[in-house]
Amino acid sequence: MAGDSQQQSWVLMVTAQTPTNIAVIKYWGKRDETLILPVNDSISVTLDPNHLCTTTTVSVSPSFQQDRMWLNGKEISLSGGRFQSCLREIRARACDVEDNKKGVKISKEDWSKLHVHIASYNNFPTAAGLASSAAGFACLVYALGKLMNVKEDESQLSAIARQGSGSACRSLFGGFVKWIMGKEENGSDSLAVQLADEKHWDDLVIVIAVVSSRQKETSSTSGMRETVETSLLLQHRAKEIVPKRILKMEEAIRNRDFASFSQLTCTDSNQFHAVCLDTSPPIFYMNDTSHKIISIAEKWNRSEESPQVAYTFDAGPNAVLIARNRKAATLLIQRLLYYFPPNSDDLDSYLQNFPPSSYIIGDKSLAKDAGINGIQDIEALPPPPEIKDNIPSQKYKGDVSYFICTRPGRGPVLLTDESQALLNSENGLPK
Amino acid sequence: MAGDSQQQSWVLMVTAQTPTNIAVIKYWGKRDETLILPVNDSISVTLDPNHLCTTTTVSVSPSFQQDRMWLNGKEISLSGGRFQSCLREIRARACDVEDNKKGVKISKEDWSKLHVHIASYNNFPTAAGLASSAAGFACLVYALGKLMNVKEDESQLSAIARQGSGSACRSLFGGFVKWIMGKEENGSDSLAVQLADEKHWDDLVIVIAVVSSRQKETSSTSGMRETVETSLLLQHRAKEIVPKRILKMEEAIRNRDFASFSQLTCTDSNQFHAVCLDTSPPIFYMNDTSHKIISIAEKWNRSEESPQVAYTFDAGPNAVLIARNRKAATLLIQRLLYYFPPNSDDLDSYLQNFPPSSYIIGDKSLAKDAGINGIQDIEALPPPPEIKDNIPSQKYKGDVSYFICTRPGRGPVLLTDESQALLNSENGLPK
Repeated sequence: MAGDSQQQSWVLMVTAQTPTNIAVIKYWGKRDETLILPVNDSISVTLDPNHLCTTTTVSVSPSFQQDRMWLNGKEISLSGGRFQSCLREIRARACDVEDNKKGVKISKEDWSKLHVHIASYNNFPTAAGLASSAAGFACLVYALGKLMNVKEDESQLSAIARQGSGSACRSLFGGFVKWIMGKEENGSDSLAVQLADEKHWDDLVIVIAVVSSRQKETSSTSGMRETVETSLLLQHRAKEIVPKRILKMEEAIRNRDFASFSQLTCTDSNQFHAVCLDTSPPIFYMNDTSHKIISIAEKWNRSEESPQVAYTFDAGPNAVLIARNRKAATLLIQRLLYYFPPNSDDLDSYLQNFPPSSYIIGDKSLAKDAGINGIQDIEALPPPPEIKDNIPSQKYKGDVSYFICTRPGRGPVLLTDESQALLNSENGLPK
Repeated sequence: MAGDSQQQSWVLMVTAQTPTNIAVIKYWGKRDETLILPVNDSISVTLDPNHLCTTTTVSVSPSFQQDRMWLNGKEISLSGGRFQSCLREIRARACDVEDNKKGVKISKEDWSKLHVHIASYNNFPTAAGLASSAAGFACLVYALGKLMNVKEDESQLSAIARQGSGSACRSLFGGFVKWIMGKEENGSDSLAVQLADEKHWDDLVIVIAVVSSRQKETSSTSGMRETVETSLLLQHRAKEIVPKRILKMEEAIRNRDFASFSQLTCTDSNQFHAVCLDTSPPIFYMNDTSHKIISIAEKWNRSEESPQVAYTFDAGPNAVLIARNRKAATLLIQRLLYYFPPNSDDLDSYLQNFPPSSYIIGDKSLAKDAGINGIQDIEALPPPPEIKDNIPSQKYKGDVSYFICTRPGRGPVLLTDESQALLNSENGLPK
């Protein structure tokens, strides 16, 4: 490799930012565990990376002795099959790279001899159950692809990201994305395509309720394996129900038909949790707080002429609520704050810092539009009109940890400003 | 009618006692709302009426001006279609009755002109969600059948009780009972048959955890209608899954095969709740406490060579736990009391009255066999061995209201001792 003997100390780096996504037609169940091939198509909405994203810097240098990775500043092992699959598939597609400024030339063949350093950072709590692995593997594959001058397009890259984490394939695009399950045994046609970009339906507003949980959850990997092995309902769902729903959901997105979108999103989320419950032993991802949020949304939707909000839950108790527009979103956040006021133990910090920096994060302007400028505004919220007068409404203080306000967003981007890189350009170690 | 002119004041009375039952293959969904015809067969275990039962006195007198009924001492309306169906069907089958002692003779034709008084009493809290309507309608039909000298056998009576409350048909027998869905449009072949009596498998011990709940529940009548109308999984369950399970469950009961019985009972309960969740809007009957009880049972079963306990949940959060034998039941009650100690607010009353008269009811000897002779024994319970040492075990004080210890039991009986009648033999009014 050119530059090899003269300058052993060069480091080439690429930094990318990739969004997370939330499925509105769910992926649950693999037909191939190693290649990560699903039993049905799925559709997702990409979330605005300004609020939820992974940033990943990948670097290469002849001085690196082995492949290494740091996640949120802590070194983690790359020996897992999923990392190895992604690294192998990307390396196999690497092309010649020339960096005139650094005087570096790497030929296609050299890549198999070079090691990489990877640093990845989520701008949201990893423990919150917000599909960090989707954004993470998408970002890893996207950044490595750029570093190694891989010519494949986003869909082809998605088939690689898929081998890291199934839902990661849908994070290669912004807006509305379909993961086509594919038919090939080698998985080459199991990839993501964009149905519409984020500007197509930019009325939508998304509020995520991060729900406090005292139960340890089943990982989605083992959960879906157990469902495939034991549920007698899953195959019926995958073969008979989802294919029709996918067509209807594509149409709803095409026409910006919120009533259909909402109905399909909610029923598919519920059906995914139904097949979890039909698993042996049963899997519970939703808890009493999740159930309460569903009841609030259902009651409100029924009281209006047409649905105002859709809800969907992944492999955990957090609610992802999609409001039809900003007006509906302010009414939604009022309802959520009415039922789930912040825990009074934390009130001091909220009072000092309003809009509460830790209770409503993301697009804080939504709280302002909802008339929430201080804790006293939450306490003064009237019961939603859909509550009948004769039923005293209960409040659930502390059952939600915090809310994230966001919207549909764009796909992966390169960050060219070197100050945003997570690795030091001199030695390729975390900054 | 003979005796009519001479003695207008006679009152004829019959008192019966009928058990409740718990389905181990669930009934959920009607194909005919009025006749109450189900979409699948179901199988139940009859619960010992010594612990959970309905007592009903029915009486007839020419002095009665109208049909009247009292439930737990409070007069209720008989105008509902379900009461009217049962009364009409029983009256249509009434035969001649002669009571020599009272000098009363009622001919077949007279019954349509006579009114009845009915008093019914549940020996357990009606609000606890313990299928009181099943025992209630079974008892009503059984007692009226005896009063009116109806010649039909229990299976034929069950087809009448079915029109009061579907699951009531299974309370006409003790032991293990199958409700055959039937094929006829008029419902004549939708009735219960006994699979085995209560002596067939008398090792089984049943513990019911009555779970505290802050959510209002969907009634099973409207719940199953909504499931039939909206769930895309229910028909698959009813047509493809349940018929095979029914055969397997019959075999498991025949062979007293607890491993199969337990596996079928648990998976069918979970699948019933799965189709509830697949309903639009979704129905949640189980809550976090129900989920916790399932986890405790599943973890224990997995740690043993073969299952020790089966669980099943009806249209509410209460757990019905079936232990393979008395030894397993004592181990079960230790686990349950370890995780769900009584609320400390109630401790005084427990201390004054041990075994706690209000926290463990029914067959209290089970608590004694489990070594629980006082509140200090609950506090001293060690963590179950299946908990790994490195996981601190959480306790859920107050999440269970109380436990009922019982067993499989007999079918309906007549109570001939007049002191047990709920109506006054002079005037036919509640005592």
